Amino acid sequence: MSQFVKGIITGTFTTLAAIGSYRILFENDNQESASSQTKASETILKYGIPDRGPDIRVYDNHILSYDQAKKTPVWVAEYITKRNIDGPADRRKIKFKSDPNVQTEFSAENSDYLGSGWSRGHMAPAGDNKHSQEAMKQSFYLSNILPQNLENNGGFWNRLEMYCRDLTKKYKGVRIFSGPLVLPTTDENGLHYVKYPVIGKNEVSVPTHLYKVIIIENEKSEPLGLGAFIVPNQPIGFEHSLKDFQVDLKKLERSSGIIFTPKLDTVKIPDLCQIDSCNLMKRDKFELYMIGRKLQGARSLKYLEKIWSEIETKNLTPDSYLINLYNSRKLELTYEEKVVRNKG
Amino acid sequence: MSQFVKGIITGTFTTLAAIGSYRILFENDNQESASSQTKASETILKYGIPDRGPDIRVYDNHILSYDQAKKTPVWVAEYITKRNIDGPADRRKIKFKSDPNVQTEFSAENSDYLGSGWSRGHMAPAGDNKHSQEAMKQSFYLSNILPQNLENNGGFWNRLEMYCRDLTKKYKGVRIFSGPLVLPTTDENGLHYVKYPVIGKNEVSVPTHLYKVIIIENEKSEPLGLGAFIVPNQPIGFEHSLKDFQVDLKKLERSSGIIFTPKLDTVKIPDLCQIDSCNLMKRDKFELYMIGRKLQGARSLKYLEKIWSEIETKNLTPDSYLINLYNSRKLELTYEEKVVRNKG
Repeated sequence: MSQFVKGIITGTFTTLAAIGSYRILFENDNQESASSQTKASETILKYGIPDRGPDIRVYDNHILSYDQAKKTPVWVAEYITKRNIDGPADRRKIKFKSDPNVQTEFSAENSDYLGSGWSRGHMAPAGDNKHSQEAMKQSFYLSNILPQNLENNGGFWNRLEMYCRDLTKKYKGVRIFSGPLVLPTTDENGLHYVKYPVIGKNEVSVPTHLYKVIIIENEKSEPLGLGAFIVPNQPIGFEHSLKDFQVDLKKLERSSGIIFTPKLDTVKIPDLCQIDSCNLMKRDKFELYMIGRKLQGARSLKYLEKIWSEIETKNLTPDSYLINLYNSRKLELTYEEKVVRNKG
Repeated sequence: MSQFVKGIITGTFTTLAAIGSYRILFENDNQESASSQTKASETILKYGIPDRGPDIRVYDNHILSYDQAKKTPVWVAEYITKRNIDGPADRRKIKFKSDPNVQTEFSAENSDYLGSGWSRGHMAPAGDNKHSQEAMKQSFYLSNILPQNLENNGGFWNRLEMYCRDLTKKYKGVRIFSGPLVLPTTDENGLHYVKYPVIGKNEVSVPTHLYKVIIIENEKSEPLGLGAFIVPNQPIGFEHSLKDFQVDLKKLERSSGIIFTPKLDTVKIPDLCQIDSCNLMKRDKFELYMIGRKLQGARSLKYLEKIWSEIETKNLTPDSYLINLYNSRKLELTYEEKVVRNKG
């Protein structure tokens, strides 16, 4: 029996059948059509079904679908709890690299990004993988990355990711889908068009927007709230709230062509921003947080002092944690540099 | 046993597994990873795999993959023989319509095209379905259609389709893949970008280019020649030959993200344009052919005479077939109009 014959189900309705590992829709509203279509399948696709790569790629802590034409993910799915956001994994030991599981001809490379003016933006964030060095390493594969405006990546989007992690402290689990969009705009002549850059020799597509769908779940793992957001891939200042970018999930589904949770009736789930605040971290707190991260990463006294001077420039008030961090890093670096001097 | 557990195959290599009707790549290079990934799959995709629609849609004489975001096909596959290109099917009895098998929210509508300045371009051509009214009807579903420049649609692309049909007279079978591309261009500042219009309320994407892959087969159904072509979605005059648009299949695969014939080693197949001519129909013959089609479709004497006058305007020499066609249509229409006058 051929690979196709066994999939044919005749009937008075169009049939969705699974054959091998493909989902195939037969337009067979009668016996005659069904017979034609069996024949059509066998002859037309004699050399296999045109292949756009695996439907999904499974990693330790995220799952994604990859776009072999755009050389970016289509969607990246995560489910995080407070277990994931704390732990020993260290991003400084990890470098971005091409995903070894993506065929070379369809893969992005670091060289596509370097010097392009676009940063490498994680969809499943590194910080959602603190529990495992291996999971964090996989989040640096370029299959999980897209060209993102640097200020957006380190600013608004970063705060959105931090908000998702904060949700794990209040709710048992947080389900997240992230990915790129290319949305149309209208020019002065009323022409409706899509325009986006491509970078590097692999012509990696730079999305005009990024999306996130967030679902919070209660102790019984039931959905408590859902929010869908479409964020322009450009700098977004502190004057904007997350709610400014909230959209109806249906709108995101139509633009992306994706039904994110086929087995969940999302219509009945309350608005995330009604259940929780949807407030991102405020400017002062965020600036202090970023200074803290830079202090931790400082590798010279000179750089440490430069970072610390931002406190004054930006008119911030450090808390005792930050002051202690500064003092201990200063001691460490003073000692390290003395050792180097004595050796030299 | 859960839907995912049974799919896990542990081993020292990344594993491609078929689970349900999805092709899933596991990044499990060790037992520990495999175990994490089983868990990840179950929790992360608790509400199903994000759905972009069936992988393929099977009709009587063509098979396609549909892009729910762009509202056009991704690829359309056909296998035609001389049996398909002759017969009683009549396109005048058929109207374009939304594909009843595509979910409304992801479907294009006729209203998207009307007044947009773009014609409805078939990927599987109506003329490849002369053997069956039903198959031809299915080729008018908008799932098989994309916004195409009118002059391209009726001109160069039409001649390319006629060339494919002509090949069935010389070779046992012709295998064809057609579809849209959005390719980058470079502006005066050296910025590399993709730009394309979207039309109508469903924002149907207008491709910058169209592609065709053509494989001719011998009596044993073995591939004899292969050609890949990328044609700009704009008017293309008679000064261009088909070879001007020929590309290496690998280049098309990289741009589209598609391996068209996964089970066929295409590298060893000779160039179609070496085996056959790749010569499209010349201007005079094509103009006469188009006049013939218009004469057949004429519904008034006035229109018939207007068409016939093109012979002189365009300085063409009609053959006896065309002269006979003109005379018989003239008799028919004279009779019909006399009947109407007498009734009126």
